[in-house]
Amino acid sequence: MIHKMKILVLHGPNLNLLGRREPEIYGTRTLEEIDDSLRRLAGELGVTVETCQSNHEGVLIDRIHDAQARGVTGLIVNPGGLTHTSVALRDAIAGVALPCIEVHLSNIHAREEFRRHSLIAPVVIGQICGLGEEGYRLALRALAARLAEG
Amino acid sequence: MIHKMKILVLHGPNLNLLGRREPEIYGTRTLEEIDDSLRRLAGELGVTVETCQSNHEGVLIDRIHDAQARGVTGLIVNPGGLTHTSVALRDAIAGVALPCIEVHLSNIHAREEFRRHSLIAPVVIGQICGLGEEGYRLALRALAARLAEG
Amino acid sequence: MIHKMKILVLHGPNLNLLGRREPEIYGTRTLEEIDDSLRRLAGELGVTVETCQSNHEGVLIDRIHDAQARGVTGLIVNPGGLTHTSVALRDAIAGVALPCIEVHLSNIHAREEFRRHSLIAPVVIGQICGLGEEGYRLALRALAARLAEG
Amino acid sequence: MIHKMKILVLHGPNLNLLGRREPEIYGTRTLEEIDDSLRRLAGELGVTVETCQSNHEGVLIDRIHDAQARGVTGLIVNPGGLTHTSVALRDAIAGVALPCIEVHLSNIHAREEFRRHSLIAPVVIGQICGLGEEGYRLALRALAARLAEG
Amino acid sequence: MIHKMKILVLHGPNLNLLGRREPEIYGTRTLEEIDDSLRRLAGELGVTVETCQSNHEGVLIDRIHDAQARGVTGLIVNPGGLTHTSVALRDAIAGVALPCIEVHLSNIHAREEFRRHSLIAPVVIGQICGLGEEGYRLALRALAARLAEG
Amino acid sequence: MIHKMKILVLHGPNLNLLGRREPEIYGTRTLEEIDDSLRRLAGELGVTVETCQSNHEGVLIDRIHDAQARGVTGLIVNPGGLTHTSVALRDAIAGVALPCIEVHLSNIHAREEFRRHSLIAPVVIGQICGLGEEGYRLALRALAARLAEG
Amino acid sequence: MIHKMKILVLHGPNLNLLGRREPEIYGTRTLEEIDDSLRRLAGELGVTVETCQSNHEGVLIDRIHDAQARGVTGLIVNPGGLTHTSVALRDAIAGVALPCIEVHLSNIHAREEFRRHSLIAPVVIGQICGLGEEGYRLALRALAARLAEG
Amino acid sequence: MIHKMKILVLHGPNLNLLGRREPEIYGTRTLEEIDDSLRRLAGELGVTVETCQSNHEGVLIDRIHDAQARGVTGLIVNPGGLTHTSVALRDAIAGVALPCIEVHLSNIHAREEFRRHSLIAPVVIGQICGLGEEGYRLALRALAARLAEG
Amino acid sequence: MIHKMKILVLHGPNLNLLGRREPEIYGTRTLEEIDDSLRRLAGELGVTVETCQSNHEGVLIDRIHDAQARGVTGLIVNPGGLTHTSVALRDAIAGVALPCIEVHLSNIHAREEFRRHSLIAPVVIGQICGLGEEGYRLALRALAARLAEG
Amino acid sequence: MIHKMKILVLHGPNLNLLGRREPEIYGTRTLEEIDDSLRRLAGELGVTVETCQSNHEGVLIDRIHDAQARGVTGLIVNPGGLTHTSVALRDAIAGVALPCIEVHLSNIHAREEFRRHSLIAPVVIGQICGLGEEGYRLALRALAARLAEG
Amino acid sequence: MIHKMKILVLHGPNLNLLGRREPEIYGTRTLEEIDDSLRRLAGELGVTVETCQSNHEGVLIDRIHDAQARGVTGLIVNPGGLTHTSVALRDAIAGVALPCIEVHLSNIHAREEFRRHSLIAPVVIGQICGLGEEGYRLALRALAARLAEG
Amino acid sequence: MIHKMKILVLHGPNLNLLGRREPEIYGTRTLEEIDDSLRRLAGELGVTVETCQSNHEGVLIDRIHDAQARGVTGLIVNPGGLTHTSVALRDAIAGVALPCIEVHLSNIHAREEFRRHSLIAPVVIGQICGLGEEGYRLALRALAARLAEG
Repeated sequence: MIHKMKILVLHGPNLNLLGRREPEIYGTRTLEEIDDSLRRLAGELGVTVETCQSNHEGVLIDRIHDAQARGVTGLIVNPGGLTHTSVALRDAIAGVALPCIEVHLSNIHAREEFRRHSLIAPVVIGQICGLGEEGYRLALRALAARLAEG
Repeated sequence: MIHKMKILVLHGPNLNLLGRREPEIYGTRTLEEIDDSLRRLAGELGVTVETCQSNHEGVLIDRIHDAQARGVTGLIVNPGGLTHTSVALRDAIAGVALPCIEVHLSNIHAREEFRRHSLIAPVVIGQICGLGEEGYRLALRALAARLAEG
Repeated sequence: MIHKMKILVLHGPNLNLLGRREPEIYGTRTLEEIDDSLRRLAGELGVTVETCQSNHEGVLIDRIHDAQARGVTGLIVNPGGLTHTSVALRDAIAGVALPCIEVHLSNIHAREEFRRHSLIAPVVIGQICGLGEEGYRLALRALAARLAEG
Repeated sequence: MIHKMKILVLHGPNLNLLGRREPEIYGTRTLEEIDDSLRRLAGELGVTVETCQSNHEGVLIDRIHDAQARGVTGLIVNPGGLTHTSVALRDAIAGVALPCIEVHLSNIHAREEFRRHSLIAPVVIGQICGLGEEGYRLALRALAARLAEG
Repeated sequence: MIHKMKILVLHGPNLNLLGRREPEIYGTRTLEEIDDSLRRLAGELGVTVETCQSNHEGVLIDRIHDAQARGVTGLIVNPGGLTHTSVALRDAIAGVALPCIEVHLSNIHAREEFRRHSLIAPVVIGQICGLGEEGYRLALRALAARLAEG
Repeated sequence: MIHKMKILVLHGPNLNLLGRREPEIYGTRTLEEIDDSLRRLAGELGVTVETCQSNHEGVLIDRIHDAQARGVTGLIVNPGGLTHTSVALRDAIAGVALPCIEVHLSNIHAREEFRRHSLIAPVVIGQICGLGEEGYRLALRALAARLAEG
Repeated sequence: MIHKMKILVLHGPNLNLLGRREPEIYGTRTLEEIDDSLRRLAGELGVTVETCQSNHEGVLIDRIHDAQARGVTGLIVNPGGLTHTSVALRDAIAGVALPCIEVHLSNIHAREEFRRHSLIAPVVIGQICGLGEEGYRLALRALAARLAEG
Repeated sequence: MIHKMKILVLHGPNLNLLGRREPEIYGTRTLEEIDDSLRRLAGELGVTVETCQSNHEGVLIDRIHDAQARGVTGLIVNPGGLTHTSVALRDAIAGVALPCIEVHLSNIHAREEFRRHSLIAPVVIGQICGLGEEGYRLALRALAARLAEG
Repeated sequence: MIHKMKILVLHGPNLNLLGRREPEIYGTRTLEEIDDSLRRLAGELGVTVETCQSNHEGVLIDRIHDAQARGVTGLIVNPGGLTHTSVALRDAIAGVALPCIEVHLSNIHAREEFRRHSLIAPVVIGQICGLGEEGYRLALRALAARLAEG
Repeated sequence: MIHKMKILVLHGPNLNLLGRREPEIYGTRTLEEIDDSLRRLAGELGVTVETCQSNHEGVLIDRIHDAQARGVTGLIVNPGGLTHTSVALRDAIAGVALPCIEVHLSNIHAREEFRRHSLIAPVVIGQICGLGEEGYRLALRALAARLAEG
Repeated sequence: MIHKMKILVLHGPNLNLLGRREPEIYGTRTLEEIDDSLRRLAGELGVTVETCQSNHEGVLIDRIHDAQARGVTGLIVNPGGLTHTSVALRDAIAGVALPCIEVHLSNIHAREEFRRHSLIAPVVIGQICGLGEEGYRLALRALAARLAEG
Repeated sequence: MIHKMKILVLHGPNLNLLGRREPEIYGTRTLEEIDDSLRRLAGELGVTVETCQSNHEGVLIDRIHDAQARGVTGLIVNPGGLTHTSVALRDAIAGVALPCIEVHLSNIHAREEFRRHSLIAPVVIGQICGLGEEGYRLALRALAARLAEG
């Protein structure tokens, strides 16, 4: 049923700086603009999108735990700097029974060595990186398609 | 004196999911049931138990700092995913003058390679892993016995 | 101009086995079906798609070298097993002046350790993995959008 | 049936020195006193305990092989220095169909780096370390409880 | 202009324990005393100092993000245990356009191996360690001098 | 049925030099002589043998892909220098449903360090090395016996 | 002379469990059945076979030292778990002047990482692994052939 | 004799792009211009030069194998990206009895870490890198001088 | 007593190039200007400063050995490139009974990987890096303060 | 008192082969000749020497444990291949209160890489290697001198 | 102008032993003969050559620093054993504004592992190794050509 | 002939501090006392001893080069901190044709990790460590004995 499709988009630490922080890496669009764009695409795809940004690992984990109770059927996560350091976030994603796609705005494989390894990646369906804001949109398409099938 | 024996049991990130999350690894008992069981055993052993779960590293550290002021005489900590990543939690345990036992429900040595290394272990008295809920109970026995001696 | 948008999709070693090889990892669709699907999507997006599969590293490199002469304006590459071993393929992609997206059908981060490191990733725009055939389609959308802008 | 519960406690190399060797690390109780204490606790728990110490890897392996034939239903093993070096002992434990708990008197995680890695741990149910003689007693409780259940 | 010089001093996890925790490593002065001392020196130097301690990574990051809006022109950060583990804190510092000096009370290079590597260091101007409370004061001098020049 | 047993023997790069190249390591027999010997032994064992040598990774992979269509029921592969570098060859062997034995003429464990690790070994039934030409013959015996059973 | 060909087959720790231990890895045949089979093949090949199994590294080394005095002209060794840990066994084999083939029932390269490295391999003629009981028989053939030539 | 001196110059993958690919690294001269220059220098030195470029590892190996039959008395090889990945190419060079000099246009030691290690270098006489086209010419001089002596 | 406070400032290899060498990293001030500035600050602080630059490890060690005999009561050392390679210099500092502060002009943690590890750091009181010439002045203040106290 | 000086010389695995095994590494003298020579030197030095060789780790450990009861006042140990693998032997030496010198006949630093690291060395007074039989004699002199002083 | 071309050739530690030391590696020519040969070639090329050998790192660095003042326009350096250990020498070369070519007589890539990594290589134009005395001559040609162009 | 036996004893950096520097590690005897003791022992043994201490690597190398010309027939070297860092010193020892014994006063294997690896050890006859001043005397005995034989 279409009303079952609610996707939670989580933005990790520092993503609230988008548009201000290092635009040569992260682009000039703000997080609000990206979230609006995702909501519009969600409307086209017939799904609902909730978004959340936090610089607190614990807040992100709490939101993942609450997701199922709130009717969420899929996750899109950009873990920011927690990608490389948070086993707790990984365990939260693995602990709930929701399909998840990991997104990175920049090509993490073309930056510092420590950014090439994601603790999150082994517990998600797939990963999209380097495609900027478009990466979120592709993830939304892929997740909506998968949920429609499943 | 018996009134001096108050033990704080800290559960780290994702342990609130117990009974729901990956039961083939973590069992079917909820955290509330485990905490109740610990309180009953504490009664038998003549000690007091306080419990706290949080997905926020900072909350756990704050609780450890407050412990002595609140009359706590020993710690039992299951750091969850922070086991492998949190120097700050390690420093908090090392920074207070309380004996501490580290507990893990699963056998962390039989899982992913990165789970085999604990940043916490070098600053605690000892570690119990792989014995499920019973591990907490054994830790409580050991800590009570040690405090009774000391 | 619309006639400038020609995208070359390169499939590396063993991808000709798709639909037959380890379907629990790679799915049941054949490479021909995937290529057809990409051509249809290309039609919708108003771009042209050329596809090529080879088990020979040299053939793939030759095709990349010939691309510009043949009017190609963007690359989508699934390097298969060469992902982790071919500096020569990496140098070929870096050596031509074409935007490139790397695609993997499976989530390479959830498989053997040696599959987590891509020699190709540092020289492409971005990478999509774990989303099966849909990954190619998302790459095509992203590349078409970027070429349209640029 | 109660008569089925016989637990073999194996002490590896140098544990015969207990009470004499480095008491600041290993305590002042002799192995005989520890074994007596375990037998008394076994009586309380309604199980039987057999103990064996050897400095010979081969003797320990032979004892593990003979265990089932002699009616043993569970193992408690302190492998001493073999913890970090003996694949053969690991294979022996994995090769018999008996639940096993690994015990270390000292907190191996707070000593030399090479003591932090146990070859034995991945093939046992769980591990207790740093709790001194009490560690054996906790292991006996845990194993008796598990055998009673199973 | 003199009114532009406001420096935010951030103290990471466990630094609230100063004077109580491991005084042989960290000295006997409390954080309040250190902050007072910094405010007095700031007065002498003609700059303003704000201080903040938190055991929550997220709170520290939020404070760094808010800094510019609140007129802060430079940062002094003692990241505590987060020094070695927090890519998110690093990204926050790199993401704002403020000069930053990293301070450690103890000589991190003479302690455990894992304390020798700072994730923060590559994104700050410089680092001072091992000089105790004086380290903060030297950092304040250096930052004031630099801001005065710039 | 006897007509089902056709075994493809693949010789990787540089094995065409046999008898000429470094005879102190690889012996004085030519590849033709070895292939003849294998065909004779195949006759004795009632199986058919096809042989192929190539210095081109792609050709070897193509041959493996074509094998089933051509009635091949088992593989013997000496990957030569590709042993240590070709994920693509590994994936080809894993991708077809044929039992495979890996053969090396020399004892790869007694040579340069990089020759000790085989990317191929984890996807074959077994490996024979150091026994010279006889290694191929033993592999043929083992494979014929296994096919006869299965 | 035919009477000179006596081959000693050494089975290391835990191989006495064969047929009982983890049959999905090691098969259902007992060591006695394997030894019988080897003796029959030896008869066909006109050589003599002696077999020995021990869980004691020292016993295995003693047997290797005694071999020449007892007329042994070649060794077949399955070192079991000692493969990866015993420099002493390696030195024993290197120290006597007898050709030796190393055998492993399972494909050690497809199991845990630590099983991929053999301390023994650099001092033997060759290695056969993954071919089960047949591996011993192939080793016997190869050694008999070599001794006949030599 | 002068007619014995024929030198084969092999250019590996992507060197056909010279003059077009990343000129800030590789210069603006085409491969044809370099080959012409080598032929002129060869004329001055009284030797013959043959050149070959291929993006196919197998083609390069075949050419090395054929070299002696075709009267070649020395090799100059720029393996391109195969430098760091091809054991097969290394074995080909080691397998023929011809002196070989390895050339790299760029200073491979001042680029990415993985370019600093050459699998080819241990089997050649010497290596020249970072001197651009001149490197080939120096190699030709050195090889001609050595052949003249030898 | 004030006359006891004599501080030796040692500048290691290449620091004589200051003002000429890579000014974007090391600034435009010459070593003479820096030494003058230090002498003036020393005058303000009521201490004496001696300075020495050498490109010879042995000369620097000799000066450290002679220090006490010459009334030196503290050291400031910028070891230059010896920071990462000289155990002998480390042993010299550890071998005399003088407090020492290590100074680096540039932020060594933001440069090549090998510059992040200092062999000297574990034997000094503290380290200041990245603050340019000011770093020497801060070190002088800190050392003078410490000597005044002690 | 002279009657207190009894030195136990332990020879580890394979040292019984001396004079027969790899004489180019270990020399032509038998162990009996070496032991005789040591006894004669002991006589000159006024001490008593006991010698023991075993290929069994457990036997060596038992002898070390028994040493004090039997009046031994110092140990000389050549652990053979156990040098690099036996934590149990290390713990035995550390566990008894006897000064110990480690001896190796060959220069272990000029052989295979794995022979360069001794698990035993950190728990002995000193180590002598590469000086052949003379090494034992020097160790005896050093130990006798030390016991005479102490 | 021709009078601007003065090239300093620096020979590092032990190169004064040439002709005497390990001639199978380094050849039979003395350093004086090599220097003479270079001076003659310089004459042919119309440039001037100065040579210097020292076993003292500091002397070599001093000579590099003095070079520009003395009219030197290019460097040829054979750092000998300092190649692998001297950051100070590296910094000296990087600190002066002179083109430099690194020369090694032997093929450092075919010797001990530690000789394969040069600290000097990343700061020079290029490197020539394995070509003996001819390597110096080729370096002189290359440097003269470059200076003539530039 | 007796007049041929002249042994050069070289003491590396910081050994001039003996008796003053860290006496708990290096003892209370001065270098002069040790040298005197060696000269007396040399007299007893009928050999001549020359001694030299320097903090300059270059001076030590020069002395080794001059040794043969000055009639030296053997070396005893305590390289101090150069043990772990000086390839040049290693090459000097390997480059002259003199037997050499390496001596360390302290047990380098029981100190910091980086002290366990000696670059010098692979090119000497043998190594003595941990036996203090006696180590030099034992080395002198061993070298004298060897020279007497040879």
